[in-house]
Formats: sequence, C-alpha cells, structure tokens
Amino acid sequence: MKTITMGIIGAGRIGKLHADNLLSRVPGVRLKGITDPFLDEEWVRSRNIPLSGKDHRILLEDPEIDAILIGSPSPEHAPQMVECAKAGKHIFCEKPIALDPTVIRNALAEVEQAGVKLQVGFNRRFDPSFAAVQQQVASGALGDPHIIRITSRDPAPPPAQYVASSGGIFLDMTIHDFDMARFLSGSEVTEVHAYGAVLVDPEIGKAGDVDTAVVSLRFANGALGIIENSRKAVYGYDQRVEVFGSKGTALAENNTPTRMVVLNESGVTRDKPLYFFLERYQAAFVGEMQAFVHAILNDTPTPVSGNDGLAPVLIALAAIESVKSGKPVPVPS
Amino acid sequence: MKTITMGIIGAGRIGKLHADNLLSRVPGVRLKGITDPFLDEEWVRSRNIPLSGKDHRILLEDPEIDAILIGSPSPEHAPQMVECAKAGKHIFCEKPIALDPTVIRNALAEVEQAGVKLQVGFNRRFDPSFAAVQQQVASGALGDPHIIRITSRDPAPPPAQYVASSGGIFLDMTIHDFDMARFLSGSEVTEVHAYGAVLVDPEIGKAGDVDTAVVSLRFANGALGIIENSRKAVYGYDQRVEVFGSKGTALAENNTPTRMVVLNESGVTRDKPLYFFLERYQAAFVGEMQAFVHAILNDTPTPVSGNDGLAPVLIALAAIESVKSGKPVPVPS
Amino acid sequence: MKTITMGIIGAGRIGKLHADNLLSRVPGVRLKGITDPFLDEEWVRSRNIPLSGKDHRILLEDPEIDAILIGSPSPEHAPQMVECAKAGKHIFCEKPIALDPTVIRNALAEVEQAGVKLQVGFNRRFDPSFAAVQQQVASGALGDPHIIRITSRDPAPPPAQYVASSGGIFLDMTIHDFDMARFLSGSEVTEVHAYGAVLVDPEIGKAGDVDTAVVSLRFANGALGIIENSRKAVYGYDQRVEVFGSKGTALAENNTPTRMVVLNESGVTRDKPLYFFLERYQAAFVGEMQAFVHAILNDTPTPVSGNDGLAPVLIALAAIESVKSGKPVPVPS
Amino acid sequence: MKTITMGIIGAGRIGKLHADNLLSRVPGVRLKGITDPFLDEEWVRSRNIPLSGKDHRILLEDPEIDAILIGSPSPEHAPQMVECAKAGKHIFCEKPIALDPTVIRNALAEVEQAGVKLQVGFNRRFDPSFAAVQQQVASGALGDPHIIRITSRDPAPPPAQYVASSGGIFLDMTIHDFDMARFLSGSEVTEVHAYGAVLVDPEIGKAGDVDTAVVSLRFANGALGIIENSRKAVYGYDQRVEVFGSKGTALAENNTPTRMVVLNESGVTRDKPLYFFLERYQAAFVGEMQAFVHAILNDTPTPVSGNDGLAPVLIALAAIESVKSGKPVPVPS
Repeated sequence: MKTITMGIIGAGRIGKLHADNLLSRVPGVRLKGITDPFLDEEWVRSRNIPLSGKDHRILLEDPEIDAILIGSPSPEHAPQMVECAKAGKHIFCEKPIALDPTVIRNALAEVEQAGVKLQVGFNRRFDPSFAAVQQQVASGALGDPHIIRITSRDPAPPPAQYVASSGGIFLDMTIHDFDMARFLSGSEVTEVHAYGAVLVDPEIGKAGDVDTAVVSLRFANGALGIIENSRKAVYGYDQRVEVFGSKGTALAENNTPTRMVVLNESGVTRDKPLYFFLERYQAAFVGEMQAFVHAILNDTPTPVSGNDGLAPVLIALAAIESVKSGKPVPVPS
Repeated sequence: MKTITMGIIGAGRIGKLHADNLLSRVPGVRLKGITDPFLDEEWVRSRNIPLSGKDHRILLEDPEIDAILIGSPSPEHAPQMVECAKAGKHIFCEKPIALDPTVIRNALAEVEQAGVKLQVGFNRRFDPSFAAVQQQVASGALGDPHIIRITSRDPAPPPAQYVASSGGIFLDMTIHDFDMARFLSGSEVTEVHAYGAVLVDPEIGKAGDVDTAVVSLRFANGALGIIENSRKAVYGYDQRVEVFGSKGTALAENNTPTRMVVLNESGVTRDKPLYFFLERYQAAFVGEMQAFVHAILNDTPTPVSGNDGLAPVLIALAAIESVKSGKPVPVPS
Repeated sequence: MKTITMGIIGAGRIGKLHADNLLSRVPGVRLKGITDPFLDEEWVRSRNIPLSGKDHRILLEDPEIDAILIGSPSPEHAPQMVECAKAGKHIFCEKPIALDPTVIRNALAEVEQAGVKLQVGFNRRFDPSFAAVQQQVASGALGDPHIIRITSRDPAPPPAQYVASSGGIFLDMTIHDFDMARFLSGSEVTEVHAYGAVLVDPEIGKAGDVDTAVVSLRFANGALGIIENSRKAVYGYDQRVEVFGSKGTALAENNTPTRMVVLNESGVTRDKPLYFFLERYQAAFVGEMQAFVHAILNDTPTPVSGNDGLAPVLIALAAIESVKSGKPVPVPS
Repeated sequence: MKTITMGIIGAGRIGKLHADNLLSRVPGVRLKGITDPFLDEEWVRSRNIPLSGKDHRILLEDPEIDAILIGSPSPEHAPQMVECAKAGKHIFCEKPIALDPTVIRNALAEVEQAGVKLQVGFNRRFDPSFAAVQQQVASGALGDPHIIRITSRDPAPPPAQYVASSGGIFLDMTIHDFDMARFLSGSEVTEVHAYGAVLVDPEIGKAGDVDTAVVSLRFANGALGIIENSRKAVYGYDQRVEVFGSKGTALAENNTPTRMVVLNESGVTRDKPLYFFLERYQAAFVGEMQAFVHAILNDTPTPVSGNDGLAPVLIALAAIESVKSGKPVPVPS
C-alpha cells in the first residue's frame, strides 16, 4: 500500500482545513469522502472530492476508505470513535475525546479491541518549533530536564457561556499545555498546584471559572514545571515553551507574520505574534496529518496515542481541584 | 464570474508547486488542466486534475480555460506567451520571459495587442516580509527613500556550464534583486556600477562569469542602492533587504525553519536561514498566484507587468558591461 | 550642598567596585575614605583616596563624611548600620541586613530614630532593563499587572557548606527575585507556594537545601507570580523578567558581551549571557549609587527602603516553610 | 614598570572621558596631569588629579610622565605629536592626525625617529562587537573574506559650516568606516567607487559636500566591500558591520540602552540604537586605553599604528575624487 484513502466526518472550519491539507500537502493519501449535516456543496465541487453527504455512515460503509478523521462537534467524538473502530477504520480524532475520563476509557477500550490505529489531535506537538525543542530533550542534548516552562495566552476570552459547557479554562485551554508538558518532559505529571484569578472578565468568574492561572507541576522524573495562562493577551496569541536541563536550555519563541523590523523615531518595531490559532499552528496541522498517514503506511504506532488523549484530562481535573482546595493535588496515574 | 479556470503548461518542479497551490491555497480558481511532454500520470490522478496531456495546445483550445500558467523551460516562455495571447488566454509567465530585450519586447507587443492580462513570475515581491517593507515605502511611513540595500546570497553555486547558458550571475541571480530594487524604491534604476570577483569557484571564472558581486545603483528619484551577491553562503540562502528613508528604515530578516533558541556551553544557537528557495519563498509562490487570480476576477492590472519583466534584464545587461569596462553604465529607459 | 562626601566600610571585591564607581561614575559625590581589616594599600594609593585604615570608626568619626557604604561581611551589616545611624551618617547597606527578621527590625528602628537615610543594596532594581520594565508598569502602560514572571538561574552552584550558612537558596538567591517581584508588581506578596528539588548537586540536598525551585506567588493587588530558580545554568547567568498586564507585556532579555551574530554551517550563533554577576549588573551597581547620592543631595526618600530590606526575608521564610509543609504559606505583612 | 604615568592634553568632552576611564577603568596606569587652556578646576579637584594647568608643556617637562594623550582640537594634533615625540613621551593621539597626507607623513617621521610608541584614536576597533567580528576573520573561522559590509549612519547632520572645515563626509565620518574596512578585512583598499547624494540637507550640498553615500571597495586580498552612510538616521546612531567569507558570515548588530521588549496592541517594540557616540562606543574608549597602556607596559606595538592613521585619509581623498569624476579611483599605497 503506497497510498491510503481517507474520509472526513465534519466539514466545518477544522474539517475543511484538514481536507485542504490532505488534498495537496500530505504525501501518500487520497481524500475520497467528506460528510457534514450542513455540507457546503460548492466547496466540495471546487475540491473535486468524489464522495460526500450528510450522513457519516457512507464513510464507514465504504470499503475503499482506510481511515477516518473525526472533526465533528466534541460530544460526538467518543461515539463516532467507537463506530469507526467497529467498522475497522483507523481513526484520527480531534481533541478532546471527551471530558469524562470514564467515557474516554470506554472508547479507548473499543479502539484497542478493534485493533485499529488511533491518533488524537494534539496538533501542537507537530509545531516545528515545539517539536524541535522536544527533539533536543529526546536526543539528550539538554541532559536531564529540570524545569519545563509553558506560556500560553489566548488573544481574546471566549464568551462566559462557553466556559460553562467547555469544562472551564483547565479543560478547554490548559489541556493543550498539559499535553505539551508531558510531551516536552518525556514524563508524567504526578502533582499539580494551581493558582487561579479572575482578572480579565468578571462574567467568567460568575460562571465559576478563572481566566488567569499559574500552574506548578511535579513530574515523575523529578523535573518541575510551570504553566501560565491568560484568556486575553492584547498583543496576540502568545505561545512559548522552554525546557531547561542539566546541559542547556531550549526555548521556542512566537511565530510572526513577517520578519520585518522597522526603526523610526518611536522605536524598533516588529510584528505581533500570529493572532489566530489556525495560522499559528498551520504547519502543525499539516504535520500531524503527515504523521498519521505515515504511521498507517508503515504500520507503526501513531505519535499521539489514546492514553495521550486521556492523561491531560486527568491533570486538568486535578488542577480544578487544586484551585478549589487551595492545595497541591496528586494526579492519578 | 466568481471562479476562473486555469491550465498549467509544464509539470516539472515549479509547475507541480503552482498546481498544488492552485488546488487548495488560492480562492476563486479551479485548476482544470496541466500538460508536460514527460507528464507524471500518477501525480495527476492523485490530484484529480481532469484534463492532462503532453501537448500544451489542449489548454489553448479549451474554451473553459480562462488563464494559463507557463512553467515550461525558459526558451519556450516567449513563444508560448505569444500562443496564449493569440488564444485569448490570460497569462502567468515564469521569469525570465527571455534574455534578449528584443525578443521580450516583441512578445509583450503581442500580449498587448491581444488585450489579455500578463503577470511575470517575480515571486519575491509576494514574500510577506519583502512586501511589508515595500508597503512601508509606499505608505510614506519611511519618508523619501534614501538607500536601498539588498543582500542576496545563494547556498551553493550552479555548475559552471549552467552559467554559460543562463547569461551569468547578473541575468540568472541578480535579476531578482534588480526587480526587488525597482519594487522597493518605487523608482527606475538609471545607472549601475558593478564590481565582480571570482572567489567561490574558478570554473565559473573560466566560463567568463563572476561569482561574487557588489553592485551600486542610482535611482531616478535620487536614491542610492546597493546589491551584494555571492554564489555560495555555506549557512544557507541569505535573502535580506532594507530601505532606509528620511523617516526611518525598514528591513527584512531571513526566515528560519523554527523559532527555537538553544543555550548551552557552546553559545546561543538558532536555526540557519531556510536553505532552499522553494521553502524560503513558499508563501510568495502562493501570494503571486492569489494576486493573479484576483486581478482577473476583478479586472484590475496584474501587480507584475510585462515591463517589470523587461526592466531587470536591461539593468543586468548594464551591470555586465560595467564589470567589463570598469566604469558606471547608464541603464536605457 | 552640591557634593556629598562618602566613606566605605569594607574594601573587598564589592567595596572596591563601589569605590571605582564613586570615583568616576557618580556625579555629586567625593569618595574620601575606605577601611578594611585587610586593606590593599597599593590599590588605595593608585586611587588617591586620602583617608584609609583598618578600623571603620575613622569614618564614623570624620565630620566631613556625610554617608557611609557598608560593604563588610554580612554578619556585620546590622551592627554597623546601628553604629552609622548613631554617628548621624546616611547609610547604604549591602544586602542582606540580616537573616533574622527581629535583628532587621531592631536595626531599622535605630536608623529611623536617628533620622538618617538608608538604602539597601538590592541593586537589580537599577538594572536598565529591569528598571525599564518596572517603568512600564508604574506608568500604567501595561494596564493592571496580571502575571509576574522571573527566571533566575545561577551559572554555578555554591559549595554545599555555603548553603548551610547562607540560609539556603531562598535566602541567598531567590531573595533577589522576591525583591524583584515586589518591585515589578508594585504590590506585596501575600502567599507563596514553592516546589523544590535537588537536581544539580546531591551535597546541597544533604545540607538540607534544594537547588532547583519553582515558586508561585499571590500578590495583594490580585496578580499572580512565578519565580523559577536553578543553581546551575551551564550557559551562564540567566536573568529574565516579564510583567504581563491587561494592556500588554514587557520583558527583559539577557545581556550579552557583544552583539555579534555568526552564521556558519553549524547554525546561527550569538554570545551566551554575561556569566558573572559583577558584569551582568555593572550598570545596576552604578545606578544604585547614583540614586543614593541623588536622594541625599535632594533630601528625598531613597528608592530601596529599610522595609524593602525586610520584606523579601519574610517571603523567603514562607517559601522555606512551603517546601517543608508541601502547602501554600501566607506571608506576614 | 608595573604602572605607567600619563598626562592628558585637552580637557574638553573627550579629554574628560579619557581621564575618567584612566582613573578607574584601566589597570596599570596612574593619571597624573591634565591641561587645557580653559580648564575646569572644580572637575580636576573632584578627581584628585595632582598636576594641572593651561599649558601642555608642564606635561612634556614632567619626567615622571611616560605617555601623553592628545585630546586637543584637531589642528593641534600633528604639532603636539611632534612635541611629545621630541620630549620622549609615548603618544596616544585622537584622530585625525591631520587632513593633509604630507603633514601626517612628516609627523609620523618625527615619531619614528624619536622611537616612542604612537597609537591613533580609531576607537571603534575596540568596540566589543566589532572586535569580535574581526577576531572571527583573524582566527580563520570565516575562511577567506569575500564581502565587507559597513552601515554607518549618524543620528543628525552637522551644521553645514562644519562640513567645510572638516573636509566633508568622507574625511570626518566615512574615515572611521575606511579604518573599519581595513581592520575587518585584514587587507588594504586598492580602489574606491563612490556615489554621493544630497538628500538630507540642501545646505550641505551648497557647502560642496554630500550627505548620503554608497561606497564600493576593492581590497588587495581580492575581497569586495560596501560602505553606506547617511548624515541623518532619525532612529539613532546606526553602526553595523558584516564580514562574509568562504566559511560563514559574522555581523555586529546595534547596541541598545536596554534589552526590554514590549508587546502591546501596536506591535512588538524594542529600544532604538544608542543615540550618542560617547554611549555607543563607551566600552571602545575604555578598550583603546587599556590596549595603549598594555602596549607600553609590555613594550609591544600599539594596535593602531601611525600608518593606520594615514591610510584612511588616502582612501577618503580617493572617494572624494570618485564622486567628482564619476569613476572608480585607485588608492595610493
């Protein structure tokens, strides 16, 4: 098999993005079909995608399709994962699998039983800069990791009502940073202490959540970690990481639209960080898809496993408890 | 007309690159056909391009095709431009149109007579950083431009035999910088002084060319300019520009694969500049295609005209003469 | 009074450094005398300092001397402060005043009663970059401060026996960062949570201390803070701060010996951060002396008060308790 | 001799600056005397300099004084050099020695005959960044130098009347860059081509000078060079160099007052380059004095010889001729 055939469930913003990447940025794959209850037929035609419709079961039933990308709304992720597994399709599932660890564990059990491959959409691992930092750790170039630092600030807060349904900042935003902490450290988080504050939007506080957070981590390998979050950085999407180790430190700075520098009477000015996550992580979205296709073509494990989808949820739940109790909280393994 | 239909002549490296960009990175266009005497059929199928073949005339004859991209070998550019013009197709032509000004002028006359649009492939104008610098000039933010600086160094020299057929460094390499000088200054070059040296490869000298050059420019608007070139920068593809004006200066630094910084006992290290021109100018290739499609959809002039294809050739010929005569040489207008 | 006259107690490394700064880098001051039990007479002659000796009381008794800099070993700071106060001399005292809050409070009471000015040697406040960040906060340009971040890593660990006498990492190293946290936030620390680890030198662990730490802070104004420390950064002395606020973020990068950039086949390399604290904070040492002289000449409060000498000790003691108890600890006000 | 004794002729801005550096920043030297026709007596007392007066001959006649720094107005440099040489004093002479090559040659002949050491005040060679770039060349790390680039832009133009007496831009400003070109390349300039323009101040043009220049150089070792100058960079004092060689490139960026970065809605902003040459080259002024004292203490050649004072004048005169004739001009060796 030199080329695999894929289908996509969900043709919203993220589904279309993956489709365009699969069409011309990922070797070894042919995108055959896409479904969505509210499908944009004109967009499908402009892309010459031969199979399309409203019901995702046309993908499950197509024997030519080897793998399915689940890009539907979050509550459908776990049940569709199970359907795909039962249909014998390899699965790329957008995060989160679910907010409830039991639901996740049950879905993962079905996937394991079906023997299909699963990759979870923690795309930031494929950001070229973050991946390069991780490679420094994995290669031993930094020695033993001592301190993991993650700065993650969104450009603008979500509506307060979103926070209620999303599970809050630790489950909808910091979850990416918990994944990054595991990825960069090459270790598991064993304990969390979190300070939270409502400094951006009082409505978020009324909804029972915080919008600013400082999270300290202990890792199984002895390293310490820091994550700091804000829902609103007026200068854009601030995404930086650093791993400090016994032989050096490696950090990733923000990406910018251009490399222009302007010097005038007011100062020396450069671009703000890329504002929008689709731009900031454009290469990461391509990279995760290339990795998924590569894993299927070569029958190797996918780089983001089902357990990688579960672990950050457990850390997030511990962080929520820490804010409530005012004490450090151990993370179940 | 909300969408135009395009065909591509030439499915080599550059033709495929444009095809992939047209397939999923350029709104308002449908890629219908592609031709090449040595066509990669499997690649065509994987992209679902409905019309393909060895002979480019199938594109000329297809009434649905509005515009044609000429990505064939350089000697075919001018004759195919004329064919496309006579067929009433809008034209995107890779550079150079030709090395002989008379040939260029004749081809441009045919295009003008046919009334079709023409855009020449000086893609660097669409590099986000260079375009941002030009925008600083055009907006008046820098005041009057006083000094234009261009550093342009290739990662590795071409074979000496290439130099003979290409017309030499000023016609195959500096020509991009001459275009950039006109683009950034918003003015015409009136005089050139060039120092050349053979410091990289003696074979290039035996072939009658230089591999290292320092070119000074006078512009019609009074500004001065500098271009410096080398055929071999061991650290990669070095592409920087700066416009210094009465109200400030704007410069563009090199692009890098990642934004990682590593600090260890050896020093503080970052990535080298992107090595390969297809990576370095990836966004520029997308940008020029978006601009071409936009010009056709909106019936506006293309941003790189036929004259923009001619002028840098005239400057290059003056630079060649300057190296030979050891004196500054005026550029014919 | 256009010029004040000063004396220095202690002519070790730090005393000589202050002397050289007072001799030619600080307007409005004449350095008249210096004392040290082991005085380097040749050095004194090369500087033409007219009054010198082994006993600091010659400075206390000299009526011409307006102010005294205490640069003796730490245990002598508090008693000498009291002597200077009783002699009616203004005081610049190197940090720490003492490790015991009661000793500090008693000494400060004497100073207050004597009505002389006191400045404590938290020199980093006068680092041009850190001061510029603080100015951004104080001017309101950053809006309300939300997160204070401090990275403070030493180039090499002290001997384990030093750690025992110094009071440990929080009292000898992080104490500067606690001062910086108060300085940058413009607020008081109300609670501390600290994770500590022994990752650099097991001997430090045996001496009862940690060598790696991650400290979270709550401030009275609602902001959150992070300090991270290591005793050993192989690439040099890593000193960075950042204040993130509602209107933007301001950060200070490391200083380097030069601004050279080298690009070669291995990568793009710059200087490591300045390795030694005397070089790193050279401008800060000059700045604190200029501020002290300025405060006396203009009869204004000194910029680093006696309470500024006490507060970081109280935070450090809370951090020590947090590491022991595994819980956040409130800081007494 | 572990310590030398020095005197300074001229206590204007530059003389005072050198005095303060000699007082506390240069090991191995004692500053004994200073003279100036308009001496600031209070300043002398605050520095405890024992010997002072209006007439520089008190320095020439003092047998204790080993070396004299000439910091008087330019027209007095050559005659005072001769006086110092005849008095057997080593000489540090501010640049330029003179504007007339014959005057320079005659003065150098007297110095040579007297057998005293002479160092000319081309201080920029001691800028840490520029010196580091030169060290890269000298160590062979860059391979053979191919292209030398110098950007040198002043923050504000001098009065037009100054230009008349100074000899013009090439003799008062570019002369530093001609010295830097020789220093960085390790070679002699053999030919110059210069374009000049009046873009900053028409009065400068009326005075017969240009205020904007682009100078191309050929070196004896085969390398090529570029210098570009402007009398007015609104963002400050722009001083950058780059040496591109067969094994890599090394460049020096501008110095800034702080390393602060501010990110807000307007962009990402850093400090402008240091505005004033005394700040920009503060370390260079200390460095040249340390090198001079070191050369005397160790009886080694000074790092900036008499010929280094002559050569840039010859290049400047060739550049002036090139602007007039419109042709490249050879530089006499």
